[in-house]
Amino acid sequence: MSPTNQQVLLAARPTGFPNPTDFRLVEAPIPEPADGQFLVGIAYLSVDPYMRGRMNAARSYADPQKLDEVMGGGAVGKVLASRHPGFAEGEYVVGMFGWQQYALSDGRGVMQVDPRLAPISAYLGVLGMPGFTAYFGLLDVCAPRPGETVVVSGAAGAVGSTVGQIAKIHGCRVVGIAGGDDKIRWITEDLGFDAAFNYKTESPYQKLKELCPAGIDCYFDNVGGSITDAVLPLMNTSGRVSICGQISMYNLEKPETGPRLFPLVLVRTLKVQGFLVFQYASRYGEALPKLAGWLQEGKLKYRETVAEGIENAVSAFLGMLRGENIGKQLVKISDQ
Amino acid sequence: MSPTNQQVLLAARPTGFPNPTDFRLVEAPIPEPADGQFLVGIAYLSVDPYMRGRMNAARSYADPQKLDEVMGGGAVGKVLASRHPGFAEGEYVVGMFGWQQYALSDGRGVMQVDPRLAPISAYLGVLGMPGFTAYFGLLDVCAPRPGETVVVSGAAGAVGSTVGQIAKIHGCRVVGIAGGDDKIRWITEDLGFDAAFNYKTESPYQKLKELCPAGIDCYFDNVGGSITDAVLPLMNTSGRVSICGQISMYNLEKPETGPRLFPLVLVRTLKVQGFLVFQYASRYGEALPKLAGWLQEGKLKYRETVAEGIENAVSAFLGMLRGENIGKQLVKISDQ
Repeated sequence: MSPTNQQVLLAARPTGFPNPTDFRLVEAPIPEPADGQFLVGIAYLSVDPYMRGRMNAARSYADPQKLDEVMGGGAVGKVLASRHPGFAEGEYVVGMFGWQQYALSDGRGVMQVDPRLAPISAYLGVLGMPGFTAYFGLLDVCAPRPGETVVVSGAAGAVGSTVGQIAKIHGCRVVGIAGGDDKIRWITEDLGFDAAFNYKTESPYQKLKELCPAGIDCYFDNVGGSITDAVLPLMNTSGRVSICGQISMYNLEKPETGPRLFPLVLVRTLKVQGFLVFQYASRYGEALPKLAGWLQEGKLKYRETVAEGIENAVSAFLGMLRGENIGKQLVKISDQ
Repeated sequence: MSPTNQQVLLAARPTGFPNPTDFRLVEAPIPEPADGQFLVGIAYLSVDPYMRGRMNAARSYADPQKLDEVMGGGAVGKVLASRHPGFAEGEYVVGMFGWQQYALSDGRGVMQVDPRLAPISAYLGVLGMPGFTAYFGLLDVCAPRPGETVVVSGAAGAVGSTVGQIAKIHGCRVVGIAGGDDKIRWITEDLGFDAAFNYKTESPYQKLKELCPAGIDCYFDNVGGSITDAVLPLMNTSGRVSICGQISMYNLEKPETGPRLFPLVLVRTLKVQGFLVFQYASRYGEALPKLAGWLQEGKLKYRETVAEGIENAVSAFLGMLRGENIGKQLVKISDQ
């Protein structure tokens, strides 16, 4: 255990793709919990695409990340000391603890996690925010029916890989789009996607046309941009599009233009729905036992790419933005 | 009454904006109804934006209009002779009778209309397809709540003018976008829109920002393109967009590009839904008494732009595509 609390701050707002110099690693004293607080020793940090948006000055759905403050983000760890009646020393918890080794919490937005159900890191992935995102974004927004064709972009990420497997569990034909042959092998050979292709070496429109002979009924979009341009013309009448992420555009210095898609939304009578997992917070309790059940039955698998040490949080984040991870990108902070 | 049946055929598929030479006026004998058929003497034809799409060779939601055949389209008229048990001579009917003076029908898709409830021409407008389009596209797709701000493009057309009034009836603040000062005067002074502006002389984004100080909750889109680009950034979180038409693009020779809108769909968690009124066919019976009731109470008004004679059907259609009509564009064929 480190004697101080190492923290990563946002030092500057990135323009375009972030630089390591946009962040700063600092040391602070390990804080003491006051009445109603507890101290968490962090085991794993999550780095996620949404964090890039929060680094901009403009408010989107949440307030921007403040400069010179600890980078916000989900983390899982152990309660080391508690003066809070609801959280006991030794319990494992998940919450928005930020990019640091130790965090104080008053319990808001924090959930206890069960380390017997799954390794605690899973609560940042398949049993956490990415899992809930996949669950509600697919089942609630797309509502796929057995036999329908579901296409997922960002298919080898934490969310996309879960989406595809949930669609398989629901009897769909699933086609994944990802950026790497190793990713394609994983989602088809290990996860059971019916087909997948590497958008970096194949023409998305041509491949989708070949792999979706009955057209596309549901599209779970993590990336946007030219991949989405290729999907939309292949959508069937009354198709549903779940907009979960648009990572291809998060690092653009200027907004890009593209073909207008609303005419297709009209003639195919599509529903295109943007969503945020937080909208479903009151229903996480519905998703968790389902996801945990599928995990235990072996119907739902996951993979993690784990960087070691808080000093590697920034490079893990940048690597995730470049698509270098397979499955959930984590940063291991300690053996809590 | 003309001794023959004058008909307008599609002579060539237009490229870009249609030319009068893409159509041909011909004469045919007045047909005789066979068993199970009836003859309609047409009083009014409807010309509608959707017809432009059907003139292209590509299938969209319906099969293309066939070349050298009578232009399809809604019309209202009187049963002149009947060998069909469900339709009696002297009854008024609305159906897809096409651009001609007389039509044979077997009754499929034909409804009797009540001339005591409203002038029969209204069954091509506020009590017909455009009225149902407005009713379901607003209430079912956007589901506006009292106090919400509803923006309508193409606001002085048959659909848009009805949408705005239905939104007012439901307690919304309504802002219309149209292309002409006379249109703006009509929808604000006569129809009770809270505000409106002429997109040809004002900046849509600046005007909308000024006229929608609480943001936009619902957008009923008839036009697409740069007007929609101006609306989307002003949408509130969880806003709803009903895509009814994209007339600004129907006559483009090449698809145009524009700013990508899906990132806004994501961060504002918008629902964007394309719809066709035919999807609601089983519920027309729900809409008709509502629309007729509002009409009789004076809460719903309409206006017609009427061209005279089948020889003017093409120019009426082209004028409608150029936005020259106010309210519903009709062609009067006879005094049936």
